[in-house]
Amino acid sequence: MKVYLAGPDVFLPNTGVAAEKKALVAAAGHIPLYPLDAASPVDAATAGKPEVAAAIFAANVAMIRAADVVLANLTPFRGPSADVGTAWEAGFGHALGKPVFGYSNVAVAFEARTRAILASGGDGMEVEDFGLASDNLMLHFSLAGYFAHQAPAGGRWRDLESFKAALAAVGADWARR
Amino acid sequence: MKVYLAGPDVFLPNTGVAAEKKALVAAAGHIPLYPLDAASPVDAATAGKPEVAAAIFAANVAMIRAADVVLANLTPFRGPSADVGTAWEAGFGHALGKPVFGYSNVAVAFEARTRAILASGGDGMEVEDFGLASDNLMLHFSLAGYFAHQAPAGGRWRDLESFKAALAAVGADWARR
Repeated sequence: MKVYLAGPDVFLPNTGVAAEKKALVAAAGHIPLYPLDAASPVDAATAGKPEVAAAIFAANVAMIRAADVVLANLTPFRGPSADVGTAWEAGFGHALGKPVFGYSNVAVAFEARTRAILASGGDGMEVEDFGLASDNLMLHFSLAGYFAHQAPAGGRWRDLESFKAALAAVGADWARR
Repeated sequence: MKVYLAGPDVFLPNTGVAAEKKALVAAAGHIPLYPLDAASPVDAATAGKPEVAAAIFAANVAMIRAADVVLANLTPFRGPSADVGTAWEAGFGHALGKPVFGYSNVAVAFEARTRAILASGGDGMEVEDFGLASDNLMLHFSLAGYFAHQAPAGGRWRDLESFKAALAAVGADWARR
């Protein structure tokens, strides 16, 4: 099975965590598809170059089309919600009929963590309140499975517990097909 | 043409802006599909009820499938990026072959507004820097068109200039098909 690894892990300053995730997928007998493996290196030389971004987009879209499943890191990124690129990929994969599994290193429900970020009094917009664990309802109900584990302080982008739980579910789902 | 109106407008405490957008779509000779028109009312009675959210998800997915085009409000929402539900819908629509047009009431490029939010020193993750106007590259390169207009203070969720520009482009695109 080919597992597309979606998530803001691509923005980590080194590839250590991604390498661990790829190794765990391989150890489970599957093939990891990781965005940065197909794309040109992103560094100071690529800054401000939309053509590099366009090539990454095309490579990622091709990887998702080739994948059997999308395994998405939905840990909140610069706000109460998942990375927007990851959310886009979840919607894209869902429309193609790929099962999308999510995991997060934050175990606080979506409404509560949104309210925490708006603690200074709100922004005049309503807070989505349906008792959902993961995120906005469009993302949430596209998920074939969701696994949250509250990582210890400093572990938000490095802890592997929620990833391992989601990967186990991906494997069990594949075995049933 | 059926135009799906994606965006965090659904979180505005009243439906005034959405009504204006729907009227503009109708005045242009098209049919607006607006999420809250299909869904049950969301109010104090629905709080904490995932089954209400599941019904909204199903209604929105059906609306996007029925639409000819997705017209998405990508104005930054509670962070540097678009609303995650809107990003998901853009990915979903793109996979179905629907043209996705975006508009925003913030005309600052994605990298600059991300850096502004991280002004207190960054979060240890890289900032995506490809000179893109709209957002994360996955969202950006799925767009058939993007229209940003810097709304005056207080107008982020009420100004209609970027919406009108995007709607004009949607109409021109439709006329060419």
